[in-house]
Amino acid sequence: MREVVILGVGMHKFGRFDGMDFTEMGSVAIQNAMKDADIVWKDIEAAFCGNTYGDTASGHRIVAQIGLTGIPIVNVENACSSSGSALRLAYQEIAAGIYDTVLAFGWEQQPRGFITSTAFPAYQRAMGMSILPAQYAMLARRHMVEYGTTVKHLAKISVKNHKNGYYNPYAHYQVLLTEEQVLNSRMVCDPLTLYMCCPTSHGAAAAVLCSKTKARRYTTKPITVAAAVLASGKYQSPACDHINYYMGSAVELSGKLAYEAAGLGPEDINIVETHEAMANAEIEQCEELGICEKGEYTQLLDAGETEITGRIPVNPSGGLLARGHPLGATSLAQVAEVVWQLREQAGPRQVNNPKVGLCHTTGSGPNSCVTILKK
Amino acid sequence: MREVVILGVGMHKFGRFDGMDFTEMGSVAIQNAMKDADIVWKDIEAAFCGNTYGDTASGHRIVAQIGLTGIPIVNVENACSSSGSALRLAYQEIAAGIYDTVLAFGWEQQPRGFITSTAFPAYQRAMGMSILPAQYAMLARRHMVEYGTTVKHLAKISVKNHKNGYYNPYAHYQVLLTEEQVLNSRMVCDPLTLYMCCPTSHGAAAAVLCSKTKARRYTTKPITVAAAVLASGKYQSPACDHINYYMGSAVELSGKLAYEAAGLGPEDINIVETHEAMANAEIEQCEELGICEKGEYTQLLDAGETEITGRIPVNPSGGLLARGHPLGATSLAQVAEVVWQLREQAGPRQVNNPKVGLCHTTGSGPNSCVTILKK
Repeated sequence: MREVVILGVGMHKFGRFDGMDFTEMGSVAIQNAMKDADIVWKDIEAAFCGNTYGDTASGHRIVAQIGLTGIPIVNVENACSSSGSALRLAYQEIAAGIYDTVLAFGWEQQPRGFITSTAFPAYQRAMGMSILPAQYAMLARRHMVEYGTTVKHLAKISVKNHKNGYYNPYAHYQVLLTEEQVLNSRMVCDPLTLYMCCPTSHGAAAAVLCSKTKARRYTTKPITVAAAVLASGKYQSPACDHINYYMGSAVELSGKLAYEAAGLGPEDINIVETHEAMANAEIEQCEELGICEKGEYTQLLDAGETEITGRIPVNPSGGLLARGHPLGATSLAQVAEVVWQLREQAGPRQVNNPKVGLCHTTGSGPNSCVTILKK
Repeated sequence: MREVVILGVGMHKFGRFDGMDFTEMGSVAIQNAMKDADIVWKDIEAAFCGNTYGDTASGHRIVAQIGLTGIPIVNVENACSSSGSALRLAYQEIAAGIYDTVLAFGWEQQPRGFITSTAFPAYQRAMGMSILPAQYAMLARRHMVEYGTTVKHLAKISVKNHKNGYYNPYAHYQVLLTEEQVLNSRMVCDPLTLYMCCPTSHGAAAAVLCSKTKARRYTTKPITVAAAVLASGKYQSPACDHINYYMGSAVELSGKLAYEAAGLGPEDINIVETHEAMANAEIEQCEELGICEKGEYTQLLDAGETEITGRIPVNPSGGLLARGHPLGATSLAQVAEVVWQLREQAGPRQVNNPKVGLCHTTGSGPNSCVTILKK
């Protein structure tokens, strides 16, 4: 398999853009990525579009705004991992030598209101597992019981990520919050208050992937895709339908496979973008991805190690909590952030000299997607 | 790239199954394909699910009914080409040596009523291009003006395909129709009457793909995937948004690329499954795919050459008109039909000793998917 790099990344700002045509939003992200890659449109040989709630063939309709050139276009719907899954397919086609230059993009105009939990069986939804915060709240409570995590830790994560997002011009929110504000915001699902839950956003993101050989024409400093991995969860019995309790197994498996593919370990990661749809997810996911031992994330947090200035910055972009969460665009927004960080283009939120970054999204299914990028 | 074969195919009957859970429908198709392939579930290393209108992560939820084993699962939404696009991705991953055994499946529970044309710009939809028959009716009229095609030809196609579907236990309709019945059925969009339009169906289909090397363990007569191609359309100016008039360019391009990949020409094809969502599409698509010259399909039709007993049987399964059209399942239902035909397992609708078959779907975008299978 050939080495694959990211030539360019681009975003459309995350936020609420009611009334904007999604094709405009998507094309802005693509055109920004094309400009960043400094290549021309006819060089794109295939495209993958991540989207969850949009209408049919949305990727085609976005590409049509730029120019239909006959290329294969595939729309990928993997819930919150949609555009990460799109990137992985682009990666595979280049690694396999099928194409040299492939576009991955994603978009969403997420409806207002908390995201519903379609992955739950109907009888569980009827009993209260109707929105995603309900699921995360149970995980949060369990972590508190098992490891002594507190609501103050959850507030700290929200404060940190909003502080990071304050410096990200693409973030949905540029607002500084205090722990008190987070703790005193409206209760959604105990222990999760409103500011511990990600907003539902509109937005788009894109990346141009290229074989390392061909990339030499365009840049001397490409960012290498060290791993692009997708996994589903496991459970022991086909009769068991509580699949969301097995989300953790999907995250662990995707991390394990990604480290193997990259020939790296969690100790090599300098920067992490996680899928903290609710504040507690940052804790559980970092632990499942081996960034620290189980139950030890809050120690890193308390010691300031996960700040931009710390040893292992987590969600320097602002994460889902502040950068926002347009489902189909989230994975590639993480990738854009890590690319900017590795190139040292992240301005006031620049991490000190990172070499390797990890992006992680997880969604219904369960599915979990990990992309490891390195200088 | 390695050779890829189809080890097994399976379907859930097409029809209306209101109230049936889609996960049941999907798992029936998968389990039939697994049984046909004679392999065990743990051998499946990755899965692609084609679906258009279903809820998020539907492929995961279907797979969860059989057993989540941690494999990567990707949901593909490419309108009517969804499961053909899923098959193509499965093909690529095996050809590239990433996996040995991959599952492709697709399902749909299509809502009642004619399929709306989301690919049209809003101003065109407001002027009447609101449902797909409107688009096809314009193409039909144009073909009549250019080549002298008549409404009787359209009726003949419907009669032929319903006759074929009569012998297909998986078809939505097992009903014999006369030309008079087709011509006298309710007018939908002049010149297309109701029986010249495909029904909106529920259903599922699946295929197990495998590297040729590994397939030797399971069968002595695998069906080879000679080509699995996806293309979008072309147009001359980015300012032009009449993308549906360029559907033909996507079909031609996908055919051309598929013949190149297979090292075969249209003259080598013994059996064709087309995407005749409306009767006239069988004419235009066969001509765009080079099965005959432009304007000459009706001669083949009049001479009985496209019957099951003819020189180049078209839609022996009953096609979209009689087998039905659950969008996300259609491409793989075509593949199942061609596999059965090549294995000479098609019972009363068996074509005489076919060696090579071509499956074609096209959808919004525009996109066009061609799969060529050979003994």
